[in-house]
Amino acid sequence: MQYPKPIEQLIDSYRLLPGIGAKTAARLAFFCMELPEEDIMQFANALISVKRDLTHCRICGNITQDNPCSICTDSFRDQTRILVVEDSKDVLSMERMGEFKGLYHVLGGVLSPMNGIGPDDLSIAPLVSRLQEMETVEEVIIATNPTPEGEATAKYIARLLKPAGIVVSRLAHGLAVGSDIEYADEMTLLRAVEGRRIL
Amino acid sequence: MQYPKPIEQLIDSYRLLPGIGAKTAARLAFFCMELPEEDIMQFANALISVKRDLTHCRICGNITQDNPCSICTDSFRDQTRILVVEDSKDVLSMERMGEFKGLYHVLGGVLSPMNGIGPDDLSIAPLVSRLQEMETVEEVIIATNPTPEGEATAKYIARLLKPAGIVVSRLAHGLAVGSDIEYADEMTLLRAVEGRRIL
Repeated sequence: MQYPKPIEQLIDSYRLLPGIGAKTAARLAFFCMELPEEDIMQFANALISVKRDLTHCRICGNITQDNPCSICTDSFRDQTRILVVEDSKDVLSMERMGEFKGLYHVLGGVLSPMNGIGPDDLSIAPLVSRLQEMETVEEVIIATNPTPEGEATAKYIARLLKPAGIVVSRLAHGLAVGSDIEYADEMTLLRAVEGRRIL
Repeated sequence: MQYPKPIEQLIDSYRLLPGIGAKTAARLAFFCMELPEEDIMQFANALISVKRDLTHCRICGNITQDNPCSICTDSFRDQTRILVVEDSKDVLSMERMGEFKGLYHVLGGVLSPMNGIGPDDLSIAPLVSRLQEMETVEEVIIATNPTPEGEATAKYIARLLKPAGIVVSRLAHGLAVGSDIEYADEMTLLRAVEGRRIL
């Protein structure tokens, strides 16, 4: 005995998503049956549109409807700085912060030998040729996540770019604003002490 | 600054689902962008099909493609017993167990005055008229969940059906098979002791 076929198919589709197991998938599929038809049509159209209408910018790798993206084609942005991030979501976080006016480069992940992800699987070679072509970039700010893989990726890129005379910097590590020293992990505390600033 | 519109729309759709907040919705939406087009089309079609091709059986309330459903129209099933469940997922659980050969009735929820759900919001009146029309039913087994609401709903239905001379029973409570007494909660232990059987 199985659920009716459309439900089984929808459960299978939900199970493709990260972090969604069999039980959650079934719960979501049954929930969809009770949603208004309008919401379901919009959901289905959004799925198709995300696949059909979006692409990765051929310059920076960020997701975009226009190619190249609106940041890469914005001549008012600072052409001397490129901020390198793991994925497109990080670009939005930086844009929301609002202080960075330069350009971006999306790696599409981090080096992870355990998962078989090497330099050729990331957008590292395109970054190097982009820097050579632009000739305006003075600083590359590496904003990979403060994880072991993010650190290793940052060091790899830094080693690659330094011979070209480009300043390579890394986001500061330390205590999050509004956080509590009591609950900070040891590595974060160590970085916060190492990176202390004179007042 | 926002994500491109198709991504924002897909995030909005994911956020309609239970237990999915803004961050998870964004993660799922970005993941969908990387899925093969075939998987996305199947996902979109399954969503539409679940809404268009499925309905609730007009007799038992279970979800079905045919109306009435295949269980209600199966004359080999025991027409003297009806098992009452909260929702369609419970029908499948019972069918998988395989020992019950009677019919089902799906309430579509449980009584919950706190959430404004009264008898008229559930398929209780249809159950009563169904029993009157069938005239074959000897026993109604109430298989609502062992929660306070499930218990209250069971008692409400039992009180309603008893005057008609129908046996109303309830699933046994007790220790789950393979579970550990050490980790059983007090109410379950109490019910297990109350319901003890002579060996």
